[in-house]
Amino acid sequence: MTIAIIGGTGPEGSGLALRWAQAGERIIIGSRDAQRASDVAAKLREKGKSVGATGVPARDVSVSGAENKTACDSADIIVLTVPFEAQAEMLKHIKPVLRPGQILVDTTVPLAASVGGRPTRSLGVWQGSAAQQAAELAPEGVSVVAAFHNISAGLLHHDGPVDCDVIVCGDDKQASQRIRVLARKIPGVRALDGGKLENARIVEQITALLIGLNIRSKGHSGLRITGLPPEAYDV
Amino acid sequence: MTIAIIGGTGPEGSGLALRWAQAGERIIIGSRDAQRASDVAAKLREKGKSVGATGVPARDVSVSGAENKTACDSADIIVLTVPFEAQAEMLKHIKPVLRPGQILVDTTVPLAASVGGRPTRSLGVWQGSAAQQAAELAPEGVSVVAAFHNISAGLLHHDGPVDCDVIVCGDDKQASQRIRVLARKIPGVRALDGGKLENARIVEQITALLIGLNIRSKGHSGLRITGLPPEAYDV
Repeated sequence: MTIAIIGGTGPEGSGLALRWAQAGERIIIGSRDAQRASDVAAKLREKGKSVGATGVPARDVSVSGAENKTACDSADIIVLTVPFEAQAEMLKHIKPVLRPGQILVDTTVPLAASVGGRPTRSLGVWQGSAAQQAAELAPEGVSVVAAFHNISAGLLHHDGPVDCDVIVCGDDKQASQRIRVLARKIPGVRALDGGKLENARIVEQITALLIGLNIRSKGHSGLRITGLPPEAYDV
Repeated sequence: MTIAIIGGTGPEGSGLALRWAQAGERIIIGSRDAQRASDVAAKLREKGKSVGATGVPARDVSVSGAENKTACDSADIIVLTVPFEAQAEMLKHIKPVLRPGQILVDTTVPLAASVGGRPTRSLGVWQGSAAQQAAELAPEGVSVVAAFHNISAGLLHHDGPVDCDVIVCGDDKQASQRIRVLARKIPGVRALDGGKLENARIVEQITALLIGLNIRSKGHSGLRITGLPPEAYDV
């Protein structure tokens, strides 16, 4: 399975790339600039290996870099990790190379910071959520799944498990399940079925709340859901 | 300190009443019907005591019942636990007896169920949130604080600690802090400063997401925030 991370040179994208590469997935870092993508990929290969030194047996990790469109071309799963202000434009850019059967994972949070406002506030999106905007812009046959909004990039780049649940929303149940499997490959993460894609509007906004908590308390906050039976976390 | 629970005969209100009574607070259950309020208060006195039988030393708990307005009259803190469809009307009803210095705690979640829709969806409130609507309807000098949206009534009525963080939002920092102190009196609960009252819009919506998780996974879900330093939970 090959995973393209669009906007993969940013903190969130590269953090997800690192964790999945360490879990044995084949990763392509996408960027507007192929050279920059390759540079970040090289760094992630080094960083991915270096985990071996801290106890886990070292192994080569598969991370390469490419221009965003090229990255999508050979991917089964495409993870969009660009800021909200770049989301629609980026989707229009990659749309010609997307094809039925691919899964598009949208991680976008419509923060007011996108238009010069506060990162603790969100924007209203006409379609209801950034994820639903992505679904409108994606070609027919590409399943859009929303996830990973609430995982702090800081935690992804640190060693050790990530103390966060990932709530996965999507209208294609099979695609949604595949992304829950992928989420669980990040050590510490539990994945939950968040229901339909429209529910992403709530999950997206939680990020603004977590950013506020981070600012007030100087932390890298995440989310755990309590009170559900263990089966809720099965995939 | 006296706490009036408006709509205190319902599951959420009576659950909060029970926990705070057990913590030694003086509680007045408010209801449209004074007799019904007294009946529920009597039941809560019995239930509150009965915890003693399971290990904790039994002691009398202070729970009385009254018509909503009468309940507000002698309270320092007024906790509104009515469904969204009754919120504005109830606030107009009690407004004449509210006075400066009182704290009004709004727990209202604007679920679409209020207008015959789904409990997993929320309604847009003109002011931004049910809490902000409450603030608009409250008389000058009454501090509105939003909290307890995400604590399941089921957990409040069970014995044992409540596995949930309470995010408290409010523009009056001192009032907000007093409610965080109150939240911590519920065993298991940690309280967090959620910032301004406007942030309640996110906290309110999380309840719709939790209800969806409960339906899909048959649980009483709650919320824990991870990744914050211990000081974040100090009050």
